[in-house]
Amino acid sequence: MKTKMKIGLFGYGCVGQGFYKALNQSPNIDAEIKKIVVKDKYKERDLPQKYFTYQASDILIDTEINTVVELIDDADKAYDIVKSALSLGKHVVSANKKLIAEHLDELINLAKEKDVSFLYEASVCASIPIIRNLEDYFKSDEIKGFQGICNGTTNYILSRTNQGLTYDKALAEAQDLGFAETDPTLDVDGYDAKYKLIILLKHAFGVGTEPDEVFNCGIRHIQPEHVTFAENQGYKIKLFSFAQKIGEKVFGFVAPFLISPKHPNYHVENEFNAVNVDAKWSHQQLFLGKGAGSEPTASAVLSDVTALDEGYKYSYTQSNSETHNLFTNNFYLKIYLASQKQKHIEDIAFLITDKSYQSNDFYCKTGWVNFQHLKEIDFNKTPDLFFAVLPKEPKLSLDKVDKILSDEYELVSE
Amino acid sequence: MKTKMKIGLFGYGCVGQGFYKALNQSPNIDAEIKKIVVKDKYKERDLPQKYFTYQASDILIDTEINTVVELIDDADKAYDIVKSALSLGKHVVSANKKLIAEHLDELINLAKEKDVSFLYEASVCASIPIIRNLEDYFKSDEIKGFQGICNGTTNYILSRTNQGLTYDKALAEAQDLGFAETDPTLDVDGYDAKYKLIILLKHAFGVGTEPDEVFNCGIRHIQPEHVTFAENQGYKIKLFSFAQKIGEKVFGFVAPFLISPKHPNYHVENEFNAVNVDAKWSHQQLFLGKGAGSEPTASAVLSDVTALDEGYKYSYTQSNSETHNLFTNNFYLKIYLASQKQKHIEDIAFLITDKSYQSNDFYCKTGWVNFQHLKEIDFNKTPDLFFAVLPKEPKLSLDKVDKILSDEYELVSE
Repeated sequence: MKTKMKIGLFGYGCVGQGFYKALNQSPNIDAEIKKIVVKDKYKERDLPQKYFTYQASDILIDTEINTVVELIDDADKAYDIVKSALSLGKHVVSANKKLIAEHLDELINLAKEKDVSFLYEASVCASIPIIRNLEDYFKSDEIKGFQGICNGTTNYILSRTNQGLTYDKALAEAQDLGFAETDPTLDVDGYDAKYKLIILLKHAFGVGTEPDEVFNCGIRHIQPEHVTFAENQGYKIKLFSFAQKIGEKVFGFVAPFLISPKHPNYHVENEFNAVNVDAKWSHQQLFLGKGAGSEPTASAVLSDVTALDEGYKYSYTQSNSETHNLFTNNFYLKIYLASQKQKHIEDIAFLITDKSYQSNDFYCKTGWVNFQHLKEIDFNKTPDLFFAVLPKEPKLSLDKVDKILSDEYELVSE
Repeated sequence: MKTKMKIGLFGYGCVGQGFYKALNQSPNIDAEIKKIVVKDKYKERDLPQKYFTYQASDILIDTEINTVVELIDDADKAYDIVKSALSLGKHVVSANKKLIAEHLDELINLAKEKDVSFLYEASVCASIPIIRNLEDYFKSDEIKGFQGICNGTTNYILSRTNQGLTYDKALAEAQDLGFAETDPTLDVDGYDAKYKLIILLKHAFGVGTEPDEVFNCGIRHIQPEHVTFAENQGYKIKLFSFAQKIGEKVFGFVAPFLISPKHPNYHVENEFNAVNVDAKWSHQQLFLGKGAGSEPTASAVLSDVTALDEGYKYSYTQSNSETHNLFTNNFYLKIYLASQKQKHIEDIAFLITDKSYQSNDFYCKTGWVNFQHLKEIDFNKTPDLFFAVLPKEPKLSLDKVDKILSDEYELVSE
C-alpha cells in the first residue's frame, strides 16, 4: 500500500496504548491513528476525547480508514470486527490468538479474495518474530519441527515449581505479579499455548487445524514428586507447543515435556517465551523474547503495520507447496505418567513399558504409548493424573519394537 | 526479479556444496546454477565436469547469468568478483564477512546505482537471520544495543576454559574438532567477530565504520586466574561483538565480557552463536543458532537467494533515517584488568578504581576507564595483560562521579 495509512484502532488497553505510543514515536513510518473504538464511555483516557468512539461501525464505514488494528480481548467480537474489516477491503493487523486459531483459513481466504493484508505477528509470543521468520527466512528450508514455550504464565509457574514451590504457591505468586489471571484456566490448561500452536502449524507446515482436534494438557496437576522425578534424571519440566513432521505427516500438541540441559529451551525461565525451530538446512534456531506485556506486544503490532505499509502479505508458502502435509494424532510418544492411584496408571495402555515405580501413595511409569489413547483423557480435569513427554523422538510406528526395547528396555520395580 | 534466476557460483568448498545441495532440494524456488568457478582443475568433484570453470570471467561475461553467489575464502578476490558482478548489473549474494566489512558502503552504493540486490545474511552468524530481522522486523523499533556471540571458535574455547581447561588445551581441542584453524589468529584475536560487528553496526544503527577504527581484543591471553575471578563473582567470560547507542552516539567493539546468569547469552555454549538485541519497544530478543558449518551457512545463502528471487533488497532504514547516528570511541567502561606484573596494570589510567587485588605474581583491578586509552593498547600482542568488560552500562561521561562512587566505590587491598 502506498496511500497514507489511516488506522482505525480497536481497543485501548495495555497493548493498544503501547501501540499508540510506539507508532507516534517511530520515525520510520508515516501512519495516523484516526479513530479508536473503546467499550467504556466513562473511563478517563490519556488522549483527547475526539479520538474515541464506541461503535465499531464508526471505523468500519469510514472509507478513509484503510487499516484496522484489532487489539481487544473478546475473541468473538474481534472475529466480527476482523471479518467485517477484511470484507470491506481494509487491511487488518490483529493480536488475538483465539480468534485467529479458530478462523484462520476463513480469514486467509477472505483477505486473499479482497487482496488485502492480514497480519498477526503479535498473536504468537508477542515480540518474538516467529511468524515472519517462518514465512520469509525459512521459506526455502524445510521445517522438521518446533518446540515452543509460548505461554509466559505457565513458564513462570514452572520456573518456580522447578525451584521447589508447590503449584498453588507458584500460581499465587504469578497472579500477584500480574503474570496470571484470577481464573488462570486458559493459560494453565494449555489453551493459550494451543491457539499459538495452531497458528504456527499453519505457517511452518501449511496444515490447518481446528482447536478441537489439537490436544492440550497443561500444568495444573503438577506435584513436587514430578519435579523430583525430573530433577533426578537431570531434566526440567517445560510446557511445549510442540510440532513435528515425519514424511508428510505432521503432529502437534501442547503438553508438559521433560527436557535435558542440551535443549535450547532448558534455560528459558520465568515469563520469557522461546521457540526452537529445527529445519533441514539451518538446523536449530532459537528465538527468545518477551511473550507478553504492553511494549513487547505493541512492538510486534508496530512491525506488522510497518510491513503492511510496504505492501507485505504472508505468502503461506507451505500451504501453497506441492507437497501437502497432513495433520495426524496417530503416533507414538515416550511418556512419564504418574498418579497416587495405581488404577489410574493402569488405565492407560503402554505399548512398551520402560520403567515403573511404586510406593504407598505414588505410582509412576515410563514407556511408549499411542497418542490417540492419551488424547481420549482430559488430563486438565483429572487431578490425580500427570504426564510429561520424555525427550525421545516421537515415532509414526512402533514396528521396530525389538530395537526400541534393546535400546532402552529396563524394568525397575522398587 | 521475475526472470528465471540463473546463478553463477564462485567456490565449491564446504559451503558451496551445501548450497548446491540445498538449492536443488528446495521445492519453493525455481533457480538454476549454471556455472561454478573453482580454483583447482584437478580436484575430484561430485558434479559433472560441465558445471566447472576456472575463470571468473566465464561467469561475469555470461549475460544469461543474472545472479552471482560468492562463497570463496579469499576476501580480496571476492571483492573483485562482487564489485565486477554488481557493476555488470548482476545480483550478488555473498558470505564473505571480511570483504563486506571492508567495502560495505562502496558496495551498497554500487548495488543501488545498478538497481540490483546485494545480500549477505550468511556473513554474520551463518544460519541466524540477524541481518534480515534488523532490516525488516525491527524497522520501526529503535535498537538500543546488541551483544553478539558471533564467533563459534572462541565461544567453544571459552566454554572449555570456563570449565577449567587451559587456553592452549581448549584451542587444541577446538582444532581437533575442526572448529579452529591451524593459525587461529582471525578467530581468537577477534577479527572475525569484528567484521561481523561492522556489518551489524550498519544495519542496526546506520553507521559505516572501517575495520581500523573498531577495536578488537580477543581471548588469546586468558588465564585460569581470570576464569576463577569471573567464577567467584558468578560470571562467565564470553567474547562479545558489542554495540550500544546512547543518544545519537554509537559505540562498538569486540572484547571479552564478564556476564551474569541473567544475560540471555550466558547459556550459549560451545560452537553456537547468538545475538541478543535490545530494542526500545520489543525489549530483549535473542537469536541463537549455528554460526558456521556447511548446511547452516548454506541455509542463509539459500534464504537470500529465495528473497532475491522475489525482488528483495535491504532497505538500510537506519542509514536513511532522519536522525544520524555517529560512531565514537570516546566513552567509559567498567573493566577487570589483570596481569602478572603490577607495572602493566598501572600503565592504564583508571578514572575510578573499584577494587584492586595483588599477590606475588598476580595483580588485578576493577574500575572505570576511558575506552580511548584501552584502544591504544594492542591487547592481542600483549601476552601478560588481560581485560574483560564488567556488566555495567557503558557511559558517555563520568561527570556524575559522586553517584558512581557511592554506588560502587569500594577499595579492597588484600
